[in-house]
Amino acid sequence: MSTRPATPLLDRVQSPADLKRLSDAQLKQVADELRAETISAVSETGGHLGAGLGVVELTVALHAVFDTPRDRLIWDVSHQSYPHKILTGRRDRIRTLRMKDGLSGFTKRAESPYDPFGAAHSSTSISAALGFKVAHDLGGTPEPALGDAIAVIGDGSMSAGMAFEAMNNAGHLGKRLFVILNDNEMSIAPPTGALSSYLSRLYTEKPLQDLKAAAKGALGLLPPPLQEGARRAKDMLKHMTVGGTMFEELGFHYVGPIDGHDMETLLSVLRTLHARATGPTLIHVLTKKGKGYRPAEMAADKGHATAKFDVITGKQVKAPSNAPSYTKVFAQALIREGEADDKVVAVTAAMPDGTGLNLFAERFPSRTFDVGIAEQHGVTFCAGLAAGGLKPFCAMYSTFLQRGYDQVVHDVALQGLPVRFAIDRAGLVGADGATHAGSFDVAYLANLPGFVVMAAADEAELVHMVATAAAHDTGPIAFRFPRGEGVGVEMPERGIPLEIGKGRLIRQGQRVAILSFGTRLAEVMKAAEALDARGISPTVADARFAKPLDRELILTLAAGHEALITIEEGAVGGFGSHVAQLLAEEGVFDTGLKYRSMVLPDVFLDQASPDQMYEAAGLTAADIEAKVLDVLGVARIGAKRA
Amino acid sequence: MSTRPATPLLDRVQSPADLKRLSDAQLKQVADELRAETISAVSETGGHLGAGLGVVELTVALHAVFDTPRDRLIWDVSHQSYPHKILTGRRDRIRTLRMKDGLSGFTKRAESPYDPFGAAHSSTSISAALGFKVAHDLGGTPEPALGDAIAVIGDGSMSAGMAFEAMNNAGHLGKRLFVILNDNEMSIAPPTGALSSYLSRLYTEKPLQDLKAAAKGALGLLPPPLQEGARRAKDMLKHMTVGGTMFEELGFHYVGPIDGHDMETLLSVLRTLHARATGPTLIHVLTKKGKGYRPAEMAADKGHATAKFDVITGKQVKAPSNAPSYTKVFAQALIREGEADDKVVAVTAAMPDGTGLNLFAERFPSRTFDVGIAEQHGVTFCAGLAAGGLKPFCAMYSTFLQRGYDQVVHDVALQGLPVRFAIDRAGLVGADGATHAGSFDVAYLANLPGFVVMAAADEAELVHMVATAAAHDTGPIAFRFPRGEGVGVEMPERGIPLEIGKGRLIRQGQRVAILSFGTRLAEVMKAAEALDARGISPTVADARFAKPLDRELILTLAAGHEALITIEEGAVGGFGSHVAQLLAEEGVFDTGLKYRSMVLPDVFLDQASPDQMYEAAGLTAADIEAKVLDVLGVARIGAKRA
Repeated sequence: MSTRPATPLLDRVQSPADLKRLSDAQLKQVADELRAETISAVSETGGHLGAGLGVVELTVALHAVFDTPRDRLIWDVSHQSYPHKILTGRRDRIRTLRMKDGLSGFTKRAESPYDPFGAAHSSTSISAALGFKVAHDLGGTPEPALGDAIAVIGDGSMSAGMAFEAMNNAGHLGKRLFVILNDNEMSIAPPTGALSSYLSRLYTEKPLQDLKAAAKGALGLLPPPLQEGARRAKDMLKHMTVGGTMFEELGFHYVGPIDGHDMETLLSVLRTLHARATGPTLIHVLTKKGKGYRPAEMAADKGHATAKFDVITGKQVKAPSNAPSYTKVFAQALIREGEADDKVVAVTAAMPDGTGLNLFAERFPSRTFDVGIAEQHGVTFCAGLAAGGLKPFCAMYSTFLQRGYDQVVHDVALQGLPVRFAIDRAGLVGADGATHAGSFDVAYLANLPGFVVMAAADEAELVHMVATAAAHDTGPIAFRFPRGEGVGVEMPERGIPLEIGKGRLIRQGQRVAILSFGTRLAEVMKAAEALDARGISPTVADARFAKPLDRELILTLAAGHEALITIEEGAVGGFGSHVAQLLAEEGVFDTGLKYRSMVLPDVFLDQASPDQMYEAAGLTAADIEAKVLDVLGVARIGAKRA
Repeated sequence: MSTRPATPLLDRVQSPADLKRLSDAQLKQVADELRAETISAVSETGGHLGAGLGVVELTVALHAVFDTPRDRLIWDVSHQSYPHKILTGRRDRIRTLRMKDGLSGFTKRAESPYDPFGAAHSSTSISAALGFKVAHDLGGTPEPALGDAIAVIGDGSMSAGMAFEAMNNAGHLGKRLFVILNDNEMSIAPPTGALSSYLSRLYTEKPLQDLKAAAKGALGLLPPPLQEGARRAKDMLKHMTVGGTMFEELGFHYVGPIDGHDMETLLSVLRTLHARATGPTLIHVLTKKGKGYRPAEMAADKGHATAKFDVITGKQVKAPSNAPSYTKVFAQALIREGEADDKVVAVTAAMPDGTGLNLFAERFPSRTFDVGIAEQHGVTFCAGLAAGGLKPFCAMYSTFLQRGYDQVVHDVALQGLPVRFAIDRAGLVGADGATHAGSFDVAYLANLPGFVVMAAADEAELVHMVATAAAHDTGPIAFRFPRGEGVGVEMPERGIPLEIGKGRLIRQGQRVAILSFGTRLAEVMKAAEALDARGISPTVADARFAKPLDRELILTLAAGHEALITIEEGAVGGFGSHVAQLLAEEGVFDTGLKYRSMVLPDVFLDQASPDQMYEAAGLTAADIEAKVLDVLGVARIGAKRA
């Protein structure tokens, strides 16, 4: 790690109020130092780098012009909020970003009054800002008191339907509201969709406006409220507007595009609008993701997310891994299915890299569709593809599939269409924390009639489940797998379709049976070994399917053991609940079966390493061992956990 | 009921192919007869009238010009599809609409090849159409073979984010695709939002175009493919375009606005575009909801949904009711809370009448917000309102709240914001069928940390739950209640907040305890009386809360009875699953408790009366009685159901 940068001026900024005492030239210097500090911090912690570097000047300018935290400044997605955190009293903890007990990698209400609305999923900021503004007008009295509301949203996030809904509503209500469109032509992946092309046209067909003079002119008219001055300022603002018809049609006043790295312009425009704006205003700001740090600027993903790195070289320090990531295993298995069947197509919602579909796209560009941040459309588009005779794989993270839940119910499940859901990031995900946890998908999918729901116990199982999904043409099917690397098992050349609704016995023991759904199987096996040493030899089975359940396997396990324990990486309502329903219906509980269901606890778990999170969740080998001992009434002398 | 109309020409139309043999003048006559037949049919069945009447000419014209079912014609929402059903071989069953074993009130794949994609929730049609089109291009081979794809979508549906996402993606892909914007300035409620204002400007600032001549001219150039002809036709199409910039910015070719009741214009424009269009094309058609039937045209809701009625007078035949509807009880209770606390505000997503918020809006217009068909935004807007110190009630149907599920998880639950969810249409809903069933909300809400989830057992309980929600300021809270009328219990003047997580004992019995969550309580009481007559006197309790559970009540019931049966109007994964999890954790199953959980069955139930649907679901008093007898091992001689 390199030595920390000298930041003499930034050192004097304890809170945004301190910015108000600085000259514009000093604010420029603060921005430069803030950029250096951000790079230094992320080099030590890893995390989202490029997005933050792109908004350094914007962050300084917004806090200098607006009265935060009274004015609610809402960062969309908020992975760009590290510079904001440094400026708002959290610099002393910035090198704990995304670590256990450290700062969140996103804004978080519990963390600071300067984070009025937490985020992580995209496109929520305008809705939230409008809520604050309406609350202001209706006399809401939170702490601190309410002022203006400002949403900062990227061009990728703006393409999501939710943002459109919010713009539509905000334009209708006509209240003073600031939406900063942070247009870096780059969300996580290169932009896609017609809106993106439209935005490009806005600034390629017309040169960047030199708004400094105009804005200064408007400022020169201050202080208000001279009628004539107000009129002329309004005219001048009107003049500043180029393009932006779409936003104007939605009832917004459009200003821009302006250079988001030109502090003087930013300050002038924001001050003018702050003084004058009356209705909803969209400020179109052009920025460069990764700005000011060459290794990020040069990277294909503009330094979107990075491991720890060397500041001088930009070289990332990654732990060596022995096994391939589940994501990559999925991608390669899907390519194999795609080679075997040209009806196999793949759909991602703006996450080609995260889902591994970039690899599928390299092989089958015309059969890969990135619909943008648009899970609702993405799911129903897949339903249409399936109705049209193709075999669509809808690859989404568990947490983001929540965005398309109604479409899963109404368009896929109700019509029994064979859409294949590849659900990545199932279970706890580590540094991204609670907002990215995939905790609910088993519960919200397994109660849909006709759905098949699988979870892979290891990376080889995942390959078979991809094949199973490809072969399953009679209805919807989903398979879930976690973030991170596999366990290093031997890999099949190509997957072999599993029999639908059939689990597998892993080891036959006695007294207690542990029925695992998903990748906790490795922990279950560790626990089984520890229990062997105690003379308790548990039976272990891999359920593979939460729906349909393997009734025969489950009832046999229940009949042949004193106790049955299910375990899954999901919340209550999922696999264990379906097992319990079966056992109840079959009257198995009447016989006094000792049944337990190990699920994620009823709390939102803060970020930590995945292992730490599963420890906090009580789903480790030690927890499983303790649960077995407890249910069998065996004294736990020498158990790892009390 | 009046005598059926004479429809000599329509009688000769067995399928859309027959339309192709008719002259334009005859098509006009078919449309007139189709309108009369639609009015006659709905007068006998009740159902959605106004929407269908508005698209009679459009329906005839589309089927006359396009080659259905090869060309996929997708009706958004599809409550306007009755004329389409009459034209596509279902006229003989049209008077069974929305009845048990009858035609669905919506399009349905299982019903006809002319229904390529079922609907009921809004704004899905463009996504589905794009899926079909891409499948066509990639060689999908469903039955029948694929042709063009046409989505017909209302202006209200177009305002939903999902439609924007689909337009954005379709504009990007650039494939030939037809989107008919059926603009009647009236979805279910009067339109709201900036998009609606924009559409109004499109046709108020510019007169309706006389496109007949232009279109005819273009047609005169046919047959293609003369180079010159093609160029001139293109120019002419371009000329036809007025306004529509927003759609053009999204990559669509915009044509319109045109008069949707002028058959000649419709046929000319559709024929021209059918022959010439190469990319995504939006055809802006102006229609009048309820067109051609004066009682509908004069009604405030333009005959949106109607009971059976007299064709001559338009007078609806409604069954007298003894108890107020749950919706109205909710609205009145909310008004009471609003009077007591000016922080209480209410949000609906385009359903002011359906949710009863029209009544709240009359009393508190500035505290009521209709965000349009925009559940995603609506939920997060509420989160912002709550963070801003107000007390928002988010009133949505169970099935539509699925649209905002990620926002419920990510913006409300994760942040612990006190948004109050008033969930109407919980459980089975009758004539609207499977697409409108509220089956999943308990499962998808009760596993969210920090959520309070209630269900009202009767209309008085609902009043108390509204008060409970108003008073609960420490986190999110939801209460669900069914469609239809209450049971006629005595009503409190104002609700009294319930103790969070406390149920109530209704009657103390022995051997078996029945724990009810929601309005099945009435059936449970009926079953209890029948069981009394058999000498089995069950204990009955009303859980009130699925979360937090009343642990003390449940464990006491379990300890004091041989058997415990839960019942709810929801799918597995909900209330019963949470009870089972508690019983497992507490080791209650170890003792041999006979536990059963009565939930909705694992099928999508077709429309019927609510009572018929609950009979099909196995959740009637007779089913409960049978379950008790079965679990106690009592012979069911004389039981109502085997």
